[in-house]
Amino acid sequence: MPTPNPPHSALSPADVASVSPVLAAYTKHKIVEELWQRPGLSNKDRYLITLSTLIARGQTAGMLHYFNGALDDGVTPAEISEIVAHLAFYAGWPTVFAAVTVLKDIFAQRGIAADQLPEIAPALLSLDDAIPDEAVRVGFIGEVVAPVSPALQHFTDEPLYHRVWLRPGLAMRDRNLVTVSALIALGQLEFLVFYLGRAVEKGITKEQLGELIGHIAFYAGWPFAMSATGVVKRFFAGRPT
Amino acid sequence: MPTPNPPHSALSPADVASVSPVLAAYTKHKIVEELWQRPGLSNKDRYLITLSTLIARGQTAGMLHYFNGALDDGVTPAEISEIVAHLAFYAGWPTVFAAVTVLKDIFAQRGIAADQLPEIAPALLSLDDAIPDEAVRVGFIGEVVAPVSPALQHFTDEPLYHRVWLRPGLAMRDRNLVTVSALIALGQLEFLVFYLGRAVEKGITKEQLGELIGHIAFYAGWPFAMSATGVVKRFFAGRPT
Amino acid sequence: MPTPNPPHSALSPADVASVSPVLAAYTKHKIVEELWQRPGLSNKDRYLITLSTLIARGQTAGMLHYFNGALDDGVTPAEISEIVAHLAFYAGWPTVFAAVTVLKDIFAQRGIAADQLPEIAPALLSLDDAIPDEAVRVGFIGEVVAPVSPALQHFTDEPLYHRVWLRPGLAMRDRNLVTVSALIALGQLEFLVFYLGRAVEKGITKEQLGELIGHIAFYAGWPFAMSATGVVKRFFAGRPT
Repeated sequence: MPTPNPPHSALSPADVASVSPVLAAYTKHKIVEELWQRPGLSNKDRYLITLSTLIARGQTAGMLHYFNGALDDGVTPAEISEIVAHLAFYAGWPTVFAAVTVLKDIFAQRGIAADQLPEIAPALLSLDDAIPDEAVRVGFIGEVVAPVSPALQHFTDEPLYHRVWLRPGLAMRDRNLVTVSALIALGQLEFLVFYLGRAVEKGITKEQLGELIGHIAFYAGWPFAMSATGVVKRFFAGRPT
Repeated sequence: MPTPNPPHSALSPADVASVSPVLAAYTKHKIVEELWQRPGLSNKDRYLITLSTLIARGQTAGMLHYFNGALDDGVTPAEISEIVAHLAFYAGWPTVFAAVTVLKDIFAQRGIAADQLPEIAPALLSLDDAIPDEAVRVGFIGEVVAPVSPALQHFTDEPLYHRVWLRPGLAMRDRNLVTVSALIALGQLEFLVFYLGRAVEKGITKEQLGELIGHIAFYAGWPFAMSATGVVKRFFAGRPT
Repeated sequence: MPTPNPPHSALSPADVASVSPVLAAYTKHKIVEELWQRPGLSNKDRYLITLSTLIARGQTAGMLHYFNGALDDGVTPAEISEIVAHLAFYAGWPTVFAAVTVLKDIFAQRGIAADQLPEIAPALLSLDDAIPDEAVRVGFIGEVVAPVSPALQHFTDEPLYHRVWLRPGLAMRDRNLVTVSALIALGQLEFLVFYLGRAVEKGITKEQLGELIGHIAFYAGWPFAMSATGVVKRFFAGRPT
């Protein structure tokens, strides 16, 4: 496949080595050959975590490589499309539009058309099934957000919780995986505990979260992974075993 | 108006829909047709908040669209120029230079020349009028900053507080709106309470702050808006009513 | 030297002035003529701090100017190469790859080849000398990280602490300066105290840290510098004098 024009070109290993031979070596030996081969997360999970990090942080330098890799390896265009729409809420529209700029060319080159993408108004999941802690969420929003920002309360309910989270285009476990990854990658940990509860409820294990943190360290940076570790530790410490 | 060369091109709705039809639909129905039409903030306020978010986070993907929209809708080149200089201090020079890269082409295309931009050394506002809490600020800087970083103390006094904040090119209320928006968009909340006090003093209402948070959620991401909500709630809880 | 193609082009002072005359004036008078001329930090230290900020935040708009300036002023290609590899861990691979994209062209234009870059597997420094607080680090990782993320524990030990930190291509004082700068620029302060202890141990003085904070304010933004100030103040308050 031809690569798009700059600025979408991906760095080759030789490009990286021309600046830092050891960084090229670590990329090959530590990331490609070791990190991605570890058990504990499926290859698809690792793509979801990586893509979420790149999209949420607007890290365009890695997008061409990983978006194409994900599509080559079985992540569907529909799933990527759904992740983009979901993360627009968590990382902000303009940040996600940087990913759209790259993805539109990739989708065009691959001939991915509207019939492969999630529709605008599909039949939604049941709120009770999708968001088992909805009562907690509504209580929190009512107590903290409503007195300050009726606007934020309104848009959090609709479309975020009563529409986006209920879209069927992404498995609920994966939607939680994407959200947790984005929060950690953004260093937005204040409400991570809340999302961890939902993630575990939807089937993400403690072991998978630990592996996610190790993975995200390479893509978001060690300090972000380290700070997330403390939150995850406290989260599990506070749960009945 | 012809668009500049890439990488300044703006995404079209069709571009967005080619990656995520629902994201294009939300952009139209939730942002353009609903968020921007809400009462509580003027159209100009919404541009100031949006531009501050884009500039402070270096979100170039949205700049062409919103810079041109702001100029078309009555935000003056002088105001945008002043916002850029102000936010260089709050978001750092290199981040703001990303906006300058886009703006210089927009200004050139529109024939905006030096006579439309704020001068380098205008008559400054009175410190007492502009910064009513200057004594508090000086006390804090003297206690926390001076023993650690005489350099930061020096540059905070001059030019930031005794020059930049006193420039007349941006209404004092708007300068506070821009600063609060940037801090929230950057997730830099440690001293937000201090800026909220000044913003309210200069005429930004509690209702406007609530609307600002709802607005910024779309442009900076939900977690940033949610965390700001808690700070604003505590700020108003600590004030006499 | 010819500048590379866009998007690597640097802004000229006239470009900046065409958007904000006062920002161009501040850049000249406050940054170039005042900040960089202050005693307390060497010119090289200021480059290391500036480069670390740009690389860690992926601020490409300033890279061409400062990478070339650093090389012109005596920072070696080997040191820059080593900083890039080091910060890949602290800021994440994709963020650092944005810097690699710029640097590969600069290195090519200057004829900087592999023989000027640090080798992949040099003789490493002694762990006892390089990381005097290794026992503290191992204890913390064992207590907080190991129960949550064996993956993060593993990669933190190897390659980060038992390989990257022991590479001889960057003076240990400078490696600490780079790390502290990146953490402050990223707003990742949770573990800054730990790094401050090591930085001081390796010869960075309190006065230099104060000057670093004043410097980084211009490149990362005031709120990041202000929050770091509080951490540095508490750090020194907790030490025997």
